[in-house]
Amino acid sequence: MPKLAYLGPEGTFTEEALRILAPQAERLPRANVSAALDAARRGEADGAVVPLENSLEGAITTTLDEFAWGGPLLITAELLLPVEFSLLARPGTRIGRIKRVFTHPAAITQCRTFIARELPDAVVVAAPSTAAAAQEVALPGSPYDAAIAARIAGEHYGLVELATGIGDRSDTVTRFVRVSRPGPLPEPTGSDRTTLVAFLTDDHPGALLEMLTEFSVRGVNLTRIESRPTGDGIGRYFFHFDFEGHVADARVGEAISGLHRICADVRFLGSYPRADGLSPQVKRGTANGDFTEATGWLSRIRTGQV
Amino acid sequence: MPKLAYLGPEGTFTEEALRILAPQAERLPRANVSAALDAARRGEADGAVVPLENSLEGAITTTLDEFAWGGPLLITAELLLPVEFSLLARPGTRIGRIKRVFTHPAAITQCRTFIARELPDAVVVAAPSTAAAAQEVALPGSPYDAAIAARIAGEHYGLVELATGIGDRSDTVTRFVRVSRPGPLPEPTGSDRTTLVAFLTDDHPGALLEMLTEFSVRGVNLTRIESRPTGDGIGRYFFHFDFEGHVADARVGEAISGLHRICADVRFLGSYPRADGLSPQVKRGTANGDFTEATGWLSRIRTGQV
Amino acid sequence: MPKLAYLGPEGTFTEEALRILAPQAERLPRANVSAALDAARRGEADGAVVPLENSLEGAITTTLDEFAWGGPLLITAELLLPVEFSLLARPGTRIGRIKRVFTHPAAITQCRTFIARELPDAVVVAAPSTAAAAQEVALPGSPYDAAIAARIAGEHYGLVELATGIGDRSDTVTRFVRVSRPGPLPEPTGSDRTTLVAFLTDDHPGALLEMLTEFSVRGVNLTRIESRPTGDGIGRYFFHFDFEGHVADARVGEAISGLHRICADVRFLGSYPRADGLSPQVKRGTANGDFTEATGWLSRIRTGQV
Amino acid sequence: MPKLAYLGPEGTFTEEALRILAPQAERLPRANVSAALDAARRGEADGAVVPLENSLEGAITTTLDEFAWGGPLLITAELLLPVEFSLLARPGTRIGRIKRVFTHPAAITQCRTFIARELPDAVVVAAPSTAAAAQEVALPGSPYDAAIAARIAGEHYGLVELATGIGDRSDTVTRFVRVSRPGPLPEPTGSDRTTLVAFLTDDHPGALLEMLTEFSVRGVNLTRIESRPTGDGIGRYFFHFDFEGHVADARVGEAISGLHRICADVRFLGSYPRADGLSPQVKRGTANGDFTEATGWLSRIRTGQV
Repeated sequence: MPKLAYLGPEGTFTEEALRILAPQAERLPRANVSAALDAARRGEADGAVVPLENSLEGAITTTLDEFAWGGPLLITAELLLPVEFSLLARPGTRIGRIKRVFTHPAAITQCRTFIARELPDAVVVAAPSTAAAAQEVALPGSPYDAAIAARIAGEHYGLVELATGIGDRSDTVTRFVRVSRPGPLPEPTGSDRTTLVAFLTDDHPGALLEMLTEFSVRGVNLTRIESRPTGDGIGRYFFHFDFEGHVADARVGEAISGLHRICADVRFLGSYPRADGLSPQVKRGTANGDFTEATGWLSRIRTGQV
Repeated sequence: MPKLAYLGPEGTFTEEALRILAPQAERLPRANVSAALDAARRGEADGAVVPLENSLEGAITTTLDEFAWGGPLLITAELLLPVEFSLLARPGTRIGRIKRVFTHPAAITQCRTFIARELPDAVVVAAPSTAAAAQEVALPGSPYDAAIAARIAGEHYGLVELATGIGDRSDTVTRFVRVSRPGPLPEPTGSDRTTLVAFLTDDHPGALLEMLTEFSVRGVNLTRIESRPTGDGIGRYFFHFDFEGHVADARVGEAISGLHRICADVRFLGSYPRADGLSPQVKRGTANGDFTEATGWLSRIRTGQV
Repeated sequence: MPKLAYLGPEGTFTEEALRILAPQAERLPRANVSAALDAARRGEADGAVVPLENSLEGAITTTLDEFAWGGPLLITAELLLPVEFSLLARPGTRIGRIKRVFTHPAAITQCRTFIARELPDAVVVAAPSTAAAAQEVALPGSPYDAAIAARIAGEHYGLVELATGIGDRSDTVTRFVRVSRPGPLPEPTGSDRTTLVAFLTDDHPGALLEMLTEFSVRGVNLTRIESRPTGDGIGRYFFHFDFEGHVADARVGEAISGLHRICADVRFLGSYPRADGLSPQVKRGTANGDFTEATGWLSRIRTGQV
Repeated sequence: MPKLAYLGPEGTFTEEALRILAPQAERLPRANVSAALDAARRGEADGAVVPLENSLEGAITTTLDEFAWGGPLLITAELLLPVEFSLLARPGTRIGRIKRVFTHPAAITQCRTFIARELPDAVVVAAPSTAAAAQEVALPGSPYDAAIAARIAGEHYGLVELATGIGDRSDTVTRFVRVSRPGPLPEPTGSDRTTLVAFLTDDHPGALLEMLTEFSVRGVNLTRIESRPTGDGIGRYFFHFDFEGHVADARVGEAISGLHRICADVRFLGSYPRADGLSPQVKRGTANGDFTEATGWLSRIRTGQV
């Protein structure tokens, strides 16, 4: 039974993701993303589950920067988890009596309509996380009457669910990844994604175009690009890339080798099955068989067998 | 005397930026970026000053999303402000007696070395902003002994500066922008930057490469690119671009017209003098004179005067 | 009734092309392509008809070089003429008695199968042109028994057609163009082609890729590219381009203006209806309306109306 | 002592090239390029020397088409030969008495100034080759008084040189290649050229741009591109490419493998030392060592050693 660290405390959406990704795992909540990843790096845990991006809020920059600068880790799985907010309160609380609500600022933003309609007079206070809000509300003398959090947080902290699905949008999704210390990669499945970080040798005009061309010329489709500051002043960035395919695929291997040749550094962050199960459209001439055939052809012509 | 809203409360780095950008302006602190921009949109202020990105933390996503989705505004100036953290306390406080420090999490991260060396036993507590931390510390019965904040916050709240320049890096910079309601643009200076947001018509592979090619083929150099989620699910993004030149420049005009033709929407966010005063390297054939000459040539050949 | 010079003598495939392109024209045969074009340039003729390329032999390099270096001319029409070779002889000649055949070398190559099967013992002699061959065969004391030429040559010189369609391939085609002195262009028809010549400023690596990108970024499809030596040593070339669309089309105008800006020289050679009647696939964002709309948008944002 | 076929008859510029490329070789003149190459293919000769292009006239299309469609051959060497025309006559001929000059049409064009100045009243007649012209003039009862040809032709046929260097330009050059039947390639020298022919899978817009991108993305510089008709109708072409580097170079190998994957067919025509001795500018990240390093890196990450 593997032990997995995660972004805690108990009752976070990340815990929910972990339970789906690894139902049998022992769960180790950690105070923040860095602490969860460090637990995996140091061997306290066999791996970790952390959020990577959210369809409304965007990238979780702490996760991106940990992957880029912290000790090496590999992504081995991903999960797309719908974000469903619930209004949670101590047993016996009536919705009409709620005066103070505690939750994370993102939840305030995303539940604006519900709050305006159902809790027009309530004071809404920002909490460090939705799970921490629920934890606080559960305390006997809490100044807060309700929390907005994942349903799972109610179960953990003995709160009851007064309303559920209270977000303005029903299609908000967070993408979580499971990571491990470096080791054998997940096998290719035909529906894989690869993640890496690329650092430019210098910041010349056209550098990004060159990087994208390394992918496009081998028919590798990007699914995400994020720029992040290197820390060395405004205007200096490095890039996170997600793209279709597995590093074991010939086209992916050649594309990222090309990237490696033109970049100051490329940090590989894993190849793993796509959560959406989509298969890539493989461009003419870029299937594994095409590469194998071309390699044979090249060997023949190099030895004069034309 | 213009009135400018800014990310408050009094004593923020944004206030410092505003004082440099518009020393004569009346300053209207607002609780957050959205409120500051709304003050400008609604006419309560003549404009606003907000942070756009930081050389360590990256983009201020609230600002990016306000620019993309909120009522239209134009950037008219930018400023690169070195981030200099000070340790601030009530008069009479001795550094050796500091038990509890209050500041923004980014400041905790960026002053890690100083804290470990000078305040090894202090508890450091997260505040919503550095200015709010200073404000709190200034209260007579505050549970906190010191704040880490901008020097300006000390002046505002009557705190003394026990140490300054306490960040781990001396070169951290935040980029601030001044915005106005739409109206006449700043004149081209020869050292200008243009900012816009582009939304894809669909998320086909190669869309980003196509957008970058619209710039590169006219010799327009990008200085920043940020992807942000559209909100319509993981894997759907729009893009913020900063690039060299003024929209009055022929090469810039043609490039962004090309972008406009292939995108679902392009929102122009302004052309304004670069804070770093750098002039672009104009690629052969892309100066204004080259465009004028080519236009004349095209007119002649269209009328058969070859 | 216009007067048109053409590549003579009477009886050439070019005459056949001219009769189709301009049935009413007075025909002025000239000894070679240069002489025909010069007749147009000097005003002896109102225009000229010359071959540009053949589907088996390729470009007619004399024509290409005349268009690039000679006095300016504009292509106003094109024609794709199937090349149908006939075996022509003096009346009374029986095919079994043919000992010596006279024709142009290209015809020898293209009629190889017929010659081997029907004239296995004949000596085949190279002539300067098929029409000249027919002219020679028609002379009373000619040493040749038959010519391979266009049927029209037989009509001119009083020869009879012993066999027709004797080429190895039935799909060989020559492309002819009609040219005029510079003047108003043919109106756009929606199925047009444009021809030009581009000279590099210098021969840097990637120059050709840059030129092609000027076309592709505006969605202009090339239909022919020919490199020709500049005369200044091996490795120095200029380029002939044919592409879809009319110079009056916005996408074509912008593309060739871009080409003009990055090239040492661009010589426009005309926009004219395509002989094949095909309409271009107009890429998203590159129709005339898209350009008009983008121009309006750019004007608005340049004046701050966002 | 190798036997080499060449474009004859004796006295051609090709013979001159052959004598420089292989001074010791036994020389087998053949009537045309095809016959010379066939002699090599069939083993009558160990190889052949033929012209490939001329700095004024352009490509020798017969050679290009033989290389593309005929039995396989490999280029093993190239030579750039200055074209120096001489006026040759039977001994005793005085220049003032020359009435009829015999030479190849290209020589007529290229010696126009000399002819106009020194032989203003002479009739100039077109010959199938300069060497054939000299051969004819050497015949006792020849109707021609002089030939314009290579000096070497005079030596062969017993003519005297009345003038030399009579071309309008002194820098005209012809590029000759030596070919062999397929077999081991010349070793890389650091200053090599590679030649191949590429056939498109279909004639979609952008196909040429795609091919060029396969080269440019690996930093391989083209030195020549020629389009030739496939024979299947106007608008259908294949391409000859010359480019810097040897097929043994990693960047060249990967580039042409990429070309092979996206093309219907690629015919390799050899890697051989450049006649001009120039070394390529190797773009950052494309040296052999960069490829070796990247291959090692890829192997490591594929096995999870990040």
